[in-house]
Amino acid sequence: MRSAAITQPDIRDRILTEAERLFRSLGYSKTTVADVAEACEMSPANVYRFFESKAAINEAITEVVLHRMETMALGIVRESRPAAERLMRLIMESHRFTCEQYLNESRVHEIVAKAMDEQWGVIDAHIERIRGCYRMVIEDGLRSGEFHADDLEGSCQCVFNAVMPFCHPQLVAEKFSQDRGRQAALMAAFLVKALSARPV
Amino acid sequence: MRSAAITQPDIRDRILTEAERLFRSLGYSKTTVADVAEACEMSPANVYRFFESKAAINEAITEVVLHRMETMALGIVRESRPAAERLMRLIMESHRFTCEQYLNESRVHEIVAKAMDEQWGVIDAHIERIRGCYRMVIEDGLRSGEFHADDLEGSCQCVFNAVMPFCHPQLVAEKFSQDRGRQAALMAAFLVKALSARPV
Repeated sequence: MRSAAITQPDIRDRILTEAERLFRSLGYSKTTVADVAEACEMSPANVYRFFESKAAINEAITEVVLHRMETMALGIVRESRPAAERLMRLIMESHRFTCEQYLNESRVHEIVAKAMDEQWGVIDAHIERIRGCYRMVIEDGLRSGEFHADDLEGSCQCVFNAVMPFCHPQLVAEKFSQDRGRQAALMAAFLVKALSARPV
Repeated sequence: MRSAAITQPDIRDRILTEAERLFRSLGYSKTTVADVAEACEMSPANVYRFFESKAAINEAITEVVLHRMETMALGIVRESRPAAERLMRLIMESHRFTCEQYLNESRVHEIVAKAMDEQWGVIDAHIERIRGCYRMVIEDGLRSGEFHADDLEGSCQCVFNAVMPFCHPQLVAEKFSQDRGRQAALMAAFLVKALSARPV
């Protein structure tokens, strides 16, 4: 509704929105920069002012998708609930997000596979931020006395490894495409029980 | 030392042994059936009497490698030790086996990747047999009172999912190639603690 001039970030976002829509509907390999430009009602040259290649657009989209997941995870970490509940939600919602992104729209698989091959730096940084979310919740649980652990680092690492199959796009596609979150929920309860047990 | 005639199974085994050696040293794609025949000191026609294609040889090798792992796992299940010790050994030895097969000799990666693409039937059956090994040890632990669980099936599934990253060739290559079994050992202890905790 605002009448202010369209800014550079607005145009950049518009390109990413249209490109993501096209990648999901046509597939990454079949979409050209000209298609993206046409959908944005601008010239290809204008798209190239913002992104030097289709790969650069894809990289930016990957960052947007990963950022959405991080925002969701951080939102759960900050909820005012017991740590056990937040940990379960974190596991189940991360799995739900992964399924939505990579299963329902099988085209996206192609984008992510490309990202995982080519953009390890971006993905590693994302994994570290998600790992940080798990760590914060587990630390909260230790502080509140809900959880017990001799070895905080070790426990965090085990929890993170145990939920990896539920957040790794390829494993989710291989193992849990028909599961509707049942096994993620079982794992969430199992891990809370493990963390709640007093060390022997 | 025996002087008995060379049997058909002997020849088949010989072909598989030489083919596996060549696939590991030259790589799968660079090895031809003629190379295998030469290494066996026989004609290609003779190799084709046993295997209709290079892919068929690879399938048979995959079965041999998976069978080795199953024999190792079943050996641990049958040891006369407490279930907790056997479960830890099962996790750590399976991980060690996976690392030896798929990390030290990077050529093998190519064989397995092919198998995982093309031979899901063979691999699914293998996964089910390994899952059965975990289940037997967990059942033993429940029977002996070492472990406690309200839901046997759920616990087995969680343990199996939690160790999946340590036995999945691609994840092992991505995440644990430099780890020397440290995280698998942590996970083994974590899971034993989880199973040993009494339900709340």
